[in-house]
Amino acid sequence: MSDNFFEKALAGRMIDAIPGMIEFDIPVHGDNRGWFKENFQKEKMLPLGFPESFFKENKLQNNVSLSRKGVLRGLHAEPWDKYISVADNGRVLGSWVDLREGASFGHVYQTVIDASKGIYVPRGVANGFQVLSDTVSYSYLVNDYWALDLKPKYAFVNYADPALGIEWDDVENAEVSEADKNHPLLKDVVPLTKAQL
Amino acid sequence: MSDNFFEKALAGRMIDAIPGMIEFDIPVHGDNRGWFKENFQKEKMLPLGFPESFFKENKLQNNVSLSRKGVLRGLHAEPWDKYISVADNGRVLGSWVDLREGASFGHVYQTVIDASKGIYVPRGVANGFQVLSDTVSYSYLVNDYWALDLKPKYAFVNYADPALGIEWDDVENAEVSEADKNHPLLKDVVPLTKAQL
Ligand SMILES: Cc1cn([C@H]2C[C@H](O)[C@@H](COP(=O)(O)OP(=O)(O)O[C@H]3O[C@H](CO)[C@@H](O)[C@H](O)[C@H]3O)O2)c(=O)[nH]c1=O
Ligand SMILES: Cc1cn([C@H]2C[C@H](O)[C@@H](COP(=O)(O)OP(=O)(O)O[C@H]3O[C@H](CO)[C@@H](O)[C@H](O)[C@H]3O)O2)c(=O)[nH]c1=O
Repeated sequence: MSDNFFEKALAGRMIDAIPGMIEFDIPVHGDNRGWFKENFQKEKMLPLGFPESFFKENKLQNNVSLSRKGVLRGLHAEPWDKYISVADNGRVLGSWVDLREGASFGHVYQTVIDASKGIYVPRGVANGFQVLSDTVSYSYLVNDYWALDLKPKYAFVNYADPALGIEWDDVENAEVSEADKNHPLLKDVVPLTKAQL
Repeated sequence: MSDNFFEKALAGRMIDAIPGMIEFDIPVHGDNRGWFKENFQKEKMLPLGFPESFFKENKLQNNVSLSRKGVLRGLHAEPWDKYISVADNGRVLGSWVDLREGASFGHVYQTVIDASKGIYVPRGVANGFQVLSDTVSYSYLVNDYWALDLKPKYAFVNYADPALGIEWDDVENAEVSEADKNHPLLKDVVPLTKAQL
């Protein structure tokens, strides 16, 4: 938990480095039992910039992953939008790389996420994180459906590529998947075209 | 985590005691990093009985609460449907009481929920749980928007009412909210009519 965890005012901020990315402050209400938050509330968050287009195709998937300290997942850019959040007292270093063709290709954004933040990640932006707490529950909404046989069509960039300038913690000892070790360097990534997204 | 936690086949079962309630088995995939699950996947879960009507009004809210061991929340029946789940390694004793007018008024269902289960709770059924693990992240989707000033219109029943026959653990020492202590006994609850829901 950050110093400033409880009772933030709900707010949305555009991330200049990566067009379409939005960082939300989420109010977390603490009491004798623990805490409660409206992690996503469509009616309140659309006016703050959450795109109505997220719901255009009426598709919805909610993914949850549980990871131990030092785990690093990413960087993955699938052809759907994501609304990312933390669902417990854990913390991650979130990292994103724009893989869309255009002026912002290769741009990076990083921030620490706890339960009081929500991040909107537009399709074509690679998503990843490293776990800073003992464990973390990472929960996100997406608007299209993953399938194993479509994986070759998804775009990836190697988390360890120094060209990204990402500051991971002790990246040599990070716990990662075999797949994530083998993703291409940024210089070898073919930028994603509008037609692919 | 239950003995049978990983790699269940996705399945949905109707709960006979409470019409419209559905219990889902959720596949959880473990690896060197922790685990991953599709907690909700519309395309796969509609054919298993998840009601299409959940999405009828295009409203969506995702709530997350974090609770310590012994915390008991409930029992609350708001005028919206809920899809309930656990988002970490915790466990709760989920308990539901049908408050809708009709033959199933007062019917109770209880089951232990971990991350490998999802529960669909139709509007008018009171929802509650007690925390069995050190902490738990409890995450749910709803299809209408809570408001403080509408709270007098929501229906509640007292978790400690012996008439419910609910088997809580050490209920005298449960950590609850002031509001939850003061809800009516089942015999004093006015059954919810179709018009109210
Ligand atoms: C993404 C996805 C994966 N899976 C299965 C395949 C594997 O058995 C297991 C883990 O899949 P992986 O591809 O290794 O997932 P992971 O590296 O964690 O990456 C995914 O999950 C991450 C969060 O855990 C996200 O940040 C990434 O954007 C997303 O691509 O879950 C599903 O069943 N459905 C899915 O949607
Ligand atoms: C339900 C709800 C509550 N709140 C605020 C009001 C309070 O400051 C704080 C906690 O609200 P309470 O009414 O005490 O919530 P709680 O007793 O935990 O009960 C709610 O949350 C439970 C899970 O925590 C659900 O099982 C119940 O169905 C739901 O009614 O969150 C919101 O801001 N939005 C909401 O949707």
